[in-house]
Amino acid sequence: MAPHLKSSLPKAFGFDVFGTVVDWRGGVIRDAKEFLASVQRTDVLPGDFADAWRSRYLETMGAYAASGRGFVTLDVLHREMLEATLHQFDLNPSALEGRRIDDLNQSWHRLDPWPDSVGGLTRLKARFPIVALSNGNISLMLDMARRSGIPWDAVLGAEVTRAYKPDPAAYLRTADILSVAPEQLCLVSSHHADLAAARACGLATAYVDRPEEFGGAPAPDRSAAQDWDWTCAGIDELASIMGC
Amino acid sequence: MAPHLKSSLPKAFGFDVFGTVVDWRGGVIRDAKEFLASVQRTDVLPGDFADAWRSRYLETMGAYAASGRGFVTLDVLHREMLEATLHQFDLNPSALEGRRIDDLNQSWHRLDPWPDSVGGLTRLKARFPIVALSNGNISLMLDMARRSGIPWDAVLGAEVTRAYKPDPAAYLRTADILSVAPEQLCLVSSHHADLAAARACGLATAYVDRPEEFGGAPAPDRSAAQDWDWTCAGIDELASIMGC
Repeated sequence: MAPHLKSSLPKAFGFDVFGTVVDWRGGVIRDAKEFLASVQRTDVLPGDFADAWRSRYLETMGAYAASGRGFVTLDVLHREMLEATLHQFDLNPSALEGRRIDDLNQSWHRLDPWPDSVGGLTRLKARFPIVALSNGNISLMLDMARRSGIPWDAVLGAEVTRAYKPDPAAYLRTADILSVAPEQLCLVSSHHADLAAARACGLATAYVDRPEEFGGAPAPDRSAAQDWDWTCAGIDELASIMGC
Repeated sequence: MAPHLKSSLPKAFGFDVFGTVVDWRGGVIRDAKEFLASVQRTDVLPGDFADAWRSRYLETMGAYAASGRGFVTLDVLHREMLEATLHQFDLNPSALEGRRIDDLNQSWHRLDPWPDSVGGLTRLKARFPIVALSNGNISLMLDMARRSGIPWDAVLGAEVTRAYKPDPAAYLRTADILSVAPEQLCLVSSHHADLAAARACGLATAYVDRPEEFGGAPAPDRSAAQDWDWTCAGIDELASIMGC
């Protein structure tokens, strides 16, 4: 992909994390496989389980936004989605050991970065502030970063802004916290819908292509694709584009 | 000082920053000196100016807590304290160039760590999560950390918890965000009043002695001294106590 060069460089980068920086599907599959074996359900494909769990994400976010509930973390929402997924596969959460479900829910804290992520982020960080701008909660991002050496300058995102993407407040409050104008903050994401919401708030946008995010299946939000300010095949390539 | 060893190690460390990790007085003096020269007021000692500015801190925090104002960052409160300090030295802020005052206010973003801080934090981080638990806002902590290589796992503190120390919420929400019990979180601070408030919330406490924080003058909160869980002369010594 040829990069589409914007005239001025951003002053800071906010990163989507699940899919953009880490391989959520591979990590959840790894832990779901172990879980399914432990409950004698090797008939369920771990990939189907991971996809079923994640596929509840958009609906869950929409229902949460409409519910008027006070702020709850993504760990809590992941757990609710997990219980619904267990029911979907005829597994009754109340009949299972709680610690097994807790441990599976923690699989999101143990996701591995894509091979280019840590190197690319380290290069970018030498010149620009890099922050997590994810819907994941702080302890999730912190566990993940410590496990893999992801060198965030700061972990921002939903638990700091008290707003879940694609709510405009999630992007605009992040720029405000960083003391930069919206157009000086670049969202880096593998998700077109995320980038579209950021652009609508005036942010700069960098798209990272992650063809394996959905196991090779087409991205569910591919119809939201636009001509983003920058396009790259990995975070190392983004660092090169930015002169790092 | 002999360390007072607690039976169990903390699961995470939250650090006070101004005084504990960085030398606020030396940094503010450096920038105040330049500022005072630029406004032809070399008759004012930069140390007196720095002390006068900082001495408004406790009163400002008390007035802010009592005011019912919505959350404002420490950058905003520092600026208000700075304008009052300028008046105190017969300098009228409205008659000065705004960018000079803005730049002086940013001196808190440019404070240098004590010589043991970055090395000690780096050692501790290899084994424990380390977070900023300061009243300073996120962009202030981020600028300071990027300038000096302070390796925070996450920048928490007042802008994340929406509570200023010594409000109990500042300590308890930090433990909650980190998914640890209050007694599993250790506050590291050179300030007895900060540690006393943390202990009242159930946190573990580590005191770092910083005899030069007030330029060799006695600490204003020395009457709040207690027998803290750990006591050390620097963050490198704390790392050694914790087996890092």
